[in-house]
Amino acid sequence: MTEITNPGEKKLVLVSGRAHPELAEQIAAELGIDLLPSSAYTFANGETYVRFEESVRGADAFVIQSHPAPINEHMMEQLIMIDSLKRASARSITVVSPFYPYARQDKKHKGREPISARLMADLYKTAGADRLMSVDLHTAQIQGFFDGPVDHLMAIPLLAQHVASKVDTDQVTVVSPDTGRVRVAEQWAELLGGAPLAFVHKTRDINVPNQAVSKTVVGEIEGRTCVLIDDMIDTGGTIAGAVKVLKENGAKDVIIAATHPVFSHPAAERLGGCGASEVIVTNTLPLREDQVFDNLTVLSIAPILAQAIKEVFDEGSVTSLFEGRAN
Amino acid sequence: MTEITNPGEKKLVLVSGRAHPELAEQIAAELGIDLLPSSAYTFANGETYVRFEESVRGADAFVIQSHPAPINEHMMEQLIMIDSLKRASARSITVVSPFYPYARQDKKHKGREPISARLMADLYKTAGADRLMSVDLHTAQIQGFFDGPVDHLMAIPLLAQHVASKVDTDQVTVVSPDTGRVRVAEQWAELLGGAPLAFVHKTRDINVPNQAVSKTVVGEIEGRTCVLIDDMIDTGGTIAGAVKVLKENGAKDVIIAATHPVFSHPAAERLGGCGASEVIVTNTLPLREDQVFDNLTVLSIAPILAQAIKEVFDEGSVTSLFEGRAN
Amino acid sequence: MTEITNPGEKKLVLVSGRAHPELAEQIAAELGIDLLPSSAYTFANGETYVRFEESVRGADAFVIQSHPAPINEHMMEQLIMIDSLKRASARSITVVSPFYPYARQDKKHKGREPISARLMADLYKTAGADRLMSVDLHTAQIQGFFDGPVDHLMAIPLLAQHVASKVDTDQVTVVSPDTGRVRVAEQWAELLGGAPLAFVHKTRDINVPNQAVSKTVVGEIEGRTCVLIDDMIDTGGTIAGAVKVLKENGAKDVIIAATHPVFSHPAAERLGGCGASEVIVTNTLPLREDQVFDNLTVLSIAPILAQAIKEVFDEGSVTSLFEGRAN
Amino acid sequence: MTEITNPGEKKLVLVSGRAHPELAEQIAAELGIDLLPSSAYTFANGETYVRFEESVRGADAFVIQSHPAPINEHMMEQLIMIDSLKRASARSITVVSPFYPYARQDKKHKGREPISARLMADLYKTAGADRLMSVDLHTAQIQGFFDGPVDHLMAIPLLAQHVASKVDTDQVTVVSPDTGRVRVAEQWAELLGGAPLAFVHKTRDINVPNQAVSKTVVGEIEGRTCVLIDDMIDTGGTIAGAVKVLKENGAKDVIIAATHPVFSHPAAERLGGCGASEVIVTNTLPLREDQVFDNLTVLSIAPILAQAIKEVFDEGSVTSLFEGRAN
Amino acid sequence: MTEITNPGEKKLVLVSGRAHPELAEQIAAELGIDLLPSSAYTFANGETYVRFEESVRGADAFVIQSHPAPINEHMMEQLIMIDSLKRASARSITVVSPFYPYARQDKKHKGREPISARLMADLYKTAGADRLMSVDLHTAQIQGFFDGPVDHLMAIPLLAQHVASKVDTDQVTVVSPDTGRVRVAEQWAELLGGAPLAFVHKTRDINVPNQAVSKTVVGEIEGRTCVLIDDMIDTGGTIAGAVKVLKENGAKDVIIAATHPVFSHPAAERLGGCGASEVIVTNTLPLREDQVFDNLTVLSIAPILAQAIKEVFDEGSVTSLFEGRAN
Amino acid sequence: MTEITNPGEKKLVLVSGRAHPELAEQIAAELGIDLLPSSAYTFANGETYVRFEESVRGADAFVIQSHPAPINEHMMEQLIMIDSLKRASARSITVVSPFYPYARQDKKHKGREPISARLMADLYKTAGADRLMSVDLHTAQIQGFFDGPVDHLMAIPLLAQHVASKVDTDQVTVVSPDTGRVRVAEQWAELLGGAPLAFVHKTRDINVPNQAVSKTVVGEIEGRTCVLIDDMIDTGGTIAGAVKVLKENGAKDVIIAATHPVFSHPAAERLGGCGASEVIVTNTLPLREDQVFDNLTVLSIAPILAQAIKEVFDEGSVTSLFEGRAN
Repeated sequence: MTEITNPGEKKLVLVSGRAHPELAEQIAAELGIDLLPSSAYTFANGETYVRFEESVRGADAFVIQSHPAPINEHMMEQLIMIDSLKRASARSITVVSPFYPYARQDKKHKGREPISARLMADLYKTAGADRLMSVDLHTAQIQGFFDGPVDHLMAIPLLAQHVASKVDTDQVTVVSPDTGRVRVAEQWAELLGGAPLAFVHKTRDINVPNQAVSKTVVGEIEGRTCVLIDDMIDTGGTIAGAVKVLKENGAKDVIIAATHPVFSHPAAERLGGCGASEVIVTNTLPLREDQVFDNLTVLSIAPILAQAIKEVFDEGSVTSLFEGRAN
Repeated sequence: MTEITNPGEKKLVLVSGRAHPELAEQIAAELGIDLLPSSAYTFANGETYVRFEESVRGADAFVIQSHPAPINEHMMEQLIMIDSLKRASARSITVVSPFYPYARQDKKHKGREPISARLMADLYKTAGADRLMSVDLHTAQIQGFFDGPVDHLMAIPLLAQHVASKVDTDQVTVVSPDTGRVRVAEQWAELLGGAPLAFVHKTRDINVPNQAVSKTVVGEIEGRTCVLIDDMIDTGGTIAGAVKVLKENGAKDVIIAATHPVFSHPAAERLGGCGASEVIVTNTLPLREDQVFDNLTVLSIAPILAQAIKEVFDEGSVTSLFEGRAN
Repeated sequence: MTEITNPGEKKLVLVSGRAHPELAEQIAAELGIDLLPSSAYTFANGETYVRFEESVRGADAFVIQSHPAPINEHMMEQLIMIDSLKRASARSITVVSPFYPYARQDKKHKGREPISARLMADLYKTAGADRLMSVDLHTAQIQGFFDGPVDHLMAIPLLAQHVASKVDTDQVTVVSPDTGRVRVAEQWAELLGGAPLAFVHKTRDINVPNQAVSKTVVGEIEGRTCVLIDDMIDTGGTIAGAVKVLKENGAKDVIIAATHPVFSHPAAERLGGCGASEVIVTNTLPLREDQVFDNLTVLSIAPILAQAIKEVFDEGSVTSLFEGRAN
Repeated sequence: MTEITNPGEKKLVLVSGRAHPELAEQIAAELGIDLLPSSAYTFANGETYVRFEESVRGADAFVIQSHPAPINEHMMEQLIMIDSLKRASARSITVVSPFYPYARQDKKHKGREPISARLMADLYKTAGADRLMSVDLHTAQIQGFFDGPVDHLMAIPLLAQHVASKVDTDQVTVVSPDTGRVRVAEQWAELLGGAPLAFVHKTRDINVPNQAVSKTVVGEIEGRTCVLIDDMIDTGGTIAGAVKVLKENGAKDVIIAATHPVFSHPAAERLGGCGASEVIVTNTLPLREDQVFDNLTVLSIAPILAQAIKEVFDEGSVTSLFEGRAN
Repeated sequence: MTEITNPGEKKLVLVSGRAHPELAEQIAAELGIDLLPSSAYTFANGETYVRFEESVRGADAFVIQSHPAPINEHMMEQLIMIDSLKRASARSITVVSPFYPYARQDKKHKGREPISARLMADLYKTAGADRLMSVDLHTAQIQGFFDGPVDHLMAIPLLAQHVASKVDTDQVTVVSPDTGRVRVAEQWAELLGGAPLAFVHKTRDINVPNQAVSKTVVGEIEGRTCVLIDDMIDTGGTIAGAVKVLKENGAKDVIIAATHPVFSHPAAERLGGCGASEVIVTNTLPLREDQVFDNLTVLSIAPILAQAIKEVFDEGSVTSLFEGRAN
Repeated sequence: MTEITNPGEKKLVLVSGRAHPELAEQIAAELGIDLLPSSAYTFANGETYVRFEESVRGADAFVIQSHPAPINEHMMEQLIMIDSLKRASARSITVVSPFYPYARQDKKHKGREPISARLMADLYKTAGADRLMSVDLHTAQIQGFFDGPVDHLMAIPLLAQHVASKVDTDQVTVVSPDTGRVRVAEQWAELLGGAPLAFVHKTRDINVPNQAVSKTVVGEIEGRTCVLIDDMIDTGGTIAGAVKVLKENGAKDVIIAATHPVFSHPAAERLGGCGASEVIVTNTLPLREDQVFDNLTVLSIAPILAQAIKEVFDEGSVTSLFEGRAN
C-alpha cells in the first residue's frame, strides 16, 4: 500500500485585525462561529506583532480588516496577518477589506505620482492573498488591479432601500456632488424607480456673460427631495458645500447617503450642521464617539459580508446576492 | 586585463504592425528615421509570422500597433512582435497602442465576466513589454492594469484647440452622451475656458408625473453650440441619438469630438446624417474609405506620439508635454 | 467554535469556445453531461465577449477550444474564457486544445523570429491556466513550453488501428513526407508490426553525376502500400507532392494519415485528386463543407479526450490510456 | 446537468531519493505504508533519471532526500523528482530535507559570495515545491528563505532527553564550540534544567599580558560534565579541538551532541579518539561503515518526521509536537 | 536610417522620505548634490501621498528612509515612493534603509507567527526595488531575504574606532548582553586587538546547588573596562540590566556601543542613569530631544552611506570599503 | 543640482567554472583579456564554494561552464556562480553552456518523467541568468525552454568545412544513426553541396518475409563515403553499431562527425576500433587522456564562442555569423 487517504473536508476560519473588531464580531455572529483567537500588539518602536492561537493548517481563512486612520498601521497589520496564515499553511486566504485602502489613488493625476490602489493589490498578493472581497469600490476598475478573484459587494441597494422607505420616490432627484459620480448616481436612480439626476459643478453661469466661475447645479432640483450620494465621505467639505448649493437652488430637502464614513475631522461638525435631514452610511469603517452626530444613520454591512463569505466557502454564487449585477 | 569596455551608446528603433502603417510612418517621419524593415504575413491557417530584417540587439524598441477590427489579429501580431524583440535581445520594449485594446471591458459588469483590459496588460507583460504608451484611455485606471511605466498621452487638448479655433467658446456647452463621461466633459470644459456642462440620460420627466422614462438632457443647452464629446465612437448609435435629443431640445449647433474613430458599421452613415456640423477625431485608428464621410475632420496624433517617444528615449519628461497633467 | 466545515466535494465543468462546438458536445456526451451554458459574441469592432451563465466557483473547469483559421480569434477567445473562469473562482483550469496553436513556430529558424509556440504556452499560463491537454503535438518538446502539467494525448494509435484494419500490414511501408517526421514514421511502423520506413527528400541523384537536385524517395517503396503520415496537413502541397513521387517510384497504393486536418485552401482539391486511395484524419479541427472530399475518413477524437478528462478529474492515470507511453 | 462530482478524498504518497533509503523506509514504516515505487539511475555522463511507477495525480507528495556528499548529486536528484511530480499532477509537493543543503552559506561572509542557502530554497520553489520540512536548521532564519510554509522540526529535545538519561544534570555545563552557537547552547541548557553555559574561543589571556592569542574557555567547566553541542559535525576539527581544551581546563567528562553527522573525513578518527565519552547524533544523514566509531550513538529522527508528515497531511498542528516552540 | 542614438549617460538622484530628513541631507551634502524636490503629505484619513517634482526618467534612484516609530507609516511611505519611481521610469531603484524594518522578526519563534523581515523584503521587491542597502542587520541572514543585490554596510568599525580612541584596549573585555550576540562581540573583539569576551546570561549558580536561576556573567570582567555591545537598543531594559550585573561583578567601567538607537520610552531614562560612562550610537535613526541624555555620543553614518552610494553608482566596490569583509 | 552623472560605459567580464578551464582560456585569449580571477573549491561534504576576486558591479558577465560528468556538480557550480554575480550587482548575466545539460530529457517519453532540459532552463533563470548561449542543441526547441534571449550557435558548418576539405563531396552520403537525426543530416547534406541522405534503423527486411527485425540502412550507401553525423556521442554504442552496418552494406569509407564528445566509457574503445577512418568533434566538452584515441580530430569551438560573445556585448548580430540561419 503506497497511499494514506482522508476525506478532505474543508474548514472556514475568520480572523480579524484590530481596526474594527465590532464588525468582525457581527460577521462571525451571522455565521454562527467565533473569531479565531489571536494575539496582536504593537511593540514600543511601532512594529506590529501577530500570532494565531489555534491551528489554521488547511483552512480557508478570511482576514477581516477595516481601514480607518491610521490606515498604514491597519494595512501593515493585515499584510502581516496574511504572511502568518501563509506560513502556517492556510489552504486559501481571502482579504476582506470592506473599505479598500488608498482607493482614491487609482490613477496618476499628475506625472510622477504613485498608483497606490494598484500597489495595495500587489502587496496583498505578495503577502499571500488568493482572493479579495470589498464593498463599493471607489472605481470598479480596482477589481482589475488584483491578480485573482475579487468579490465586489454592493451596499448601494441596502442604502437605497432605506431611503425608499423614508421618502416619496416620485419627489426624489439623485444628485452627484461632482462630475465623477454621475454614473453611480444613475445606479441609485434606477434603484429608486427611475428618478431624475443632477450634479453639482463649478462653471460659468451661461445666463450672465463674463461672470466668474462658481458652484452651480446642473439638473432640476427645485422643490425636490435631493438624495445626495457618494461612495465615501472624508472631511465632508465637498458634500456639505453641495447641500448648501442645493438648498440655495430651491431643494425642498436633502438626504446624504454614502457607503464609507471616513469622517475625518471636521466631518461630524460639517455634516451635523449642513442642513441635510439625514446622513446615511454603513459600518464599513468604525466610528469613534466624536465622529457621530444627530441625524446620522448607520446601517450594518455585516449581513452582506457574512452571506458573501458563506457563498465563497460553499462555492455558491456571490453574484446572485445582487441579482446578477457586478459593478 | 579582465575587462573589455565600450561606450554604451543607446539606440532607438521603431517597429510597426500591419494595422495602420500610415500612422507608424508619420511617427517615423516626425523622428526623422525609417521604420525597421520587417517581414510579416499570415499563414494559410491564420497564424501570424513576424521577423525583423535588421539587428535589434541592445535597442530601445517601440512597437507601434493600432487596434481596429479584426482587433484580435492585431493584438496577437503585436504580442508576437514583442516576443521576437525579446528573444532578439532588445534592451527595452515599449508598446505603443494609441487605442488600447479591450478598453471597455475594464471591470466586471456582471458576475463571471472577464476583465479583458487587465488581461491585455498582462499579455503584453508576459510577451516581454517593459512599458506602455497609449492615448486617452477609456478609463484612466487602465494605467494601473500594467505592471510598469505607462505613458498616458492626451489628444483632448489637440481636439479642443481645433474646436476653439472654430466656435465662439462663450456659446459652447460641453455635453457628455451618457452619465459615464461627465468627468471627461469637465476636462473639455476647462480647456474651453470654463464652459458649462450637460449630459444626456434616460430618466422620468419630473414635470409630468407617471410619464414613461425617455432620453432627456440634463443641463442648459438651448440656443447653444453643443460640443458632444466621447473617448471613442463605435457604431455611433449613442452619439447620433444624443445629437437628435440635443437638437430637439433647442441646441443651435452640435459638434462631435472624440479621440478614437472605431467607426464600426453603420457609424459613417449615422454620423454623416445625424445633423452634427462637424465630427472631429484623430487617427489613432485607420479609416477605410467607407468609414469616411463629409463633415469628418481627422487630426494627426503622430506629432504627439513622436514627441513622447523622443522624451522617453532621451529620458526627458512626457508629463511636461501636457503641462504636468496626467489623467 | 471557530470553524465551519463542509465535505469538500469536487465538481467538473466543461466550457467550450465557438471554434468547434460539435467536438465539445461529443466530449460532453461521452461524459454524460451538458456543456456549461455561456454567452459569447463578437462586438462590432472585433472584440470578443464571454460570460458563463452558471456559477463555476470551486469547479475544475476544462476549456475546450479548437484552433482552425482564424486562429488568433479562437486563441484570444480561449484566453478570455480562462480569465473569466479565474476571476469567477474556478478551482482549477485545464486548457483543452486538441490542435496546439502555432505549434510549427516552436524554434527560431532564422534570427529575430518569435518562438510563438512558447509564447502561446505563456499566454495560457498568464490568463490563468493550470494544466494543458493536447493531441499529437507537432514536436513533443512543446510539453516543456508550459510551466505545469501537460497531458499529451495520442491519436496515432487510433489512426494506425484504422489503417491496419484495411491493409495487409506485411505490404506496408511507412513514409515520412520530409526529413523531419522520420521519427514519427518509426512510431507508426511499430504500431503496424515493424513495417519498413522511407522518406521523401530533395537530393542529388547519386547515380547520375552532376544532375540537378530533385525530389526523390529514400527507402524501398516499389510495389508496396505506402502509408504516408504527418501530424497535420495544411495546404496539402508537400503531401500531394509526396504521393506523386511515391507513385512515380512504383508504389502500389498510397494511404495518407494525419491527426490534424488544417486543410487550408486548396488542400481539399489537392488531396482529393492526388491519387491517394484514402485520406484519414481526426476531428481535432472542424471541417467546412468545402474542406471535405471523396476519399476522406474522419475519426472522432472525442472518446480519447473525454476519457483523459475523466482520468484527470478522478485523479487516475492518463498515461495508462496509452500503455505507459508518452511522446 | 452540467457537473460531475466526486467526494474529493485526499491521498498521501512518500517518495525517496537515493541518498538515504533506510531513513525513508523507517518513515514509511512509521506511517504504515510503502514508499512509492520509482526508477532512478545515473546515466553514463552523470545525468540523473527519475520516474515514478504509479500515478501520483492529485496526491500530496512528500519528497524525502538526505544530503550527504556528493551533495550536488542528491540536490539535483531531488529537484528532478519534484519536476516529475509537478508534471505528473501531484496536488502538493513537500520537500523533506532533514539536513538542509548549503545551510552554512546563509549569508555573505565576504563580498562577491553567493548565498547558496537562499538559492537552494529558490531552486526548490522553481522546480515545484509548495512546502519545506527540515530539522534543526543551521540558522533559524533559513525558514525565511523559502517562499511558503516551512515546518522546522527539532531534534534537540530528542538528544537532550538521551543526555539527561545518562548524566547528573546538576553536574552539567553546556558548551558551545564557538561564539556562534551560544544561543543554541542556551536552548540545551533550558532543556537540561537550567544548566550553566560556556563557550570555546580564541582570545588573549587577560591574566598574562602580551601573550599570544590562543584557544580558551569562557565559563566555568572545571570538574563538570561538559555537554559540547553543535548543529552539525563536519570534519570534526573544531569539536575535537574543543574537547581538548575542555579537558585541559579541568572538565571531568565531555559528551558531544549534534543533530547532523556530516562526518567528512577524518571526522570518525578525530571523534573516536578525542576523549569524549560519547558522541550522540541523529540519522538525518546516512553513515557509511567507515564513518562509525566506538562511542557513537545514533538516534532515529524517523518518528519525528513521520509524525510531522502525518500532522501536515491531516491538517493538524506540527508546532504542537514541540510544545508550541518554533525555532 | 533606422536608428536614433544617444550617448547613454547615467544619472543618480537621491530621494528621501519624511522620517529622518537630516540624515538624507547629510548624505546629499557628502555627495555634493541636493535631494530631489518632492511633495509628501498625509491625508486626513491617514493615506500617504508622494510626488516627485522633477523628472526621474532613466535615473538611478536611491530612496532613503529611516524607520523609527511609527515604523509602519515610514515603511508604507517608502513603498509608495518606490511605486512612484517605478511608474515614472526610473532606471533602477535602490532602497536605502539604514535600520532595516522588522529585523527582529527574522524567524518564527513560535508556530503561526509571521516572518515579517522577509515580508518587508518582498514588499520592497513588489513595489519595484532592485537593490537594498542597510547597516548592521540584526542577523546577516536578512541579506538572503531580498531577491537581488544587498549592500550590507558596517558601522561597527566606526564605533570601535571611537571606543579605541578613548580606552586602553588592553583593559577591555567585550560583553554581549545575551547569548545571541556573542558572535558580534567576537567581531568587536577583533577590531579592538583581540580583546577577551564575556556575556550576560540567566543561569543556575553552579557553586550553590539548588539555587534559583539568576542573571550572571560568563567570562572574566573583574577590574576590566567592559564594552557592552548590541546592534540596537530599544527600551534599554536588557542593556541597563547588563550594566548593573557587570558593575556588581566588579567591572571597572562600562561603555555601551550600538549601531541603532531605537530608544523607545523609557530608554533615555534607563541609559542615562544606568552607570555606563558613555553610550555610543550612530544616527541611523533620528533622535527627538526627549531621547537624548548626558553621556550619549552620536556618530554620523552619512559618510559611509554616501560612499557606498557613490560606489554603487560608479560600479566600484562596496566591499572594499570594509576591507573585503561582508557580514 | 539634483543629479550626478557619469558616462555609462559598458564592461564585459568572463568567468569560468572548473569543468573545462582550457576552453574558457581559449575564449578569453580570442577576446584578448584574462578570465576574472575567482576562488572555487569543494568542501569536505561536497558543497561548492565560489567567490570572485574582483568587482563585477555593473559588468556584463559571461559564465562559461562545460558539462561533462559529473554533470550535476558542474551545473550546481554554475548556478552558484550566477547567484554570486547577481548578488554582486552584475548588470547582466549570460550563461555560456556549449553543451546544454540534460538536453536529451527534453520531453516525457513515458508518464511521470521529468522534463529536465526545461528544469535546467528554469534553474538558470531563477539563479539570475538573463541570457543563454549554447552550441548545437539536441533539439532546437530547447531555445523555447528559456524565458529570454538564447543565442544558439552552430558547430556544424565548422565540422562540415573540415569534412569537405578531406573528401570528394560527390562521393559522400550523409547518414543519420537513427530516425531522429534525419533533419540534421539534411542540414549537413546542404552544407556538403546537396549530398544524398540515408539513415540506420531497425526494421523487417521487406525482401525476406517473416524475417526477424534487424538493423538495416535506408538509403543508398554502397561504394560511398558515409559521413555519419550526430549532435553528441555518449557511450558510442549506437554510432559504432551504425558504422558496422554501413560497412556491411558496402560503404567505402565512414567518417564520424559530432559536435559534443561526451565519450562516456567505453566510447574511446568503441570509436577507436569501429572502423571509421576519422572521428571529428569539437571541444565543447573536455577530454581526459583516456577518452582520446588515434583517429580522433578535435576542432576548437572557442573562436565561434568568442565571436558570439563579442557580438552580444557590442550589440551586433549573432545571426550574421551563420548567414542568417538559426536552428
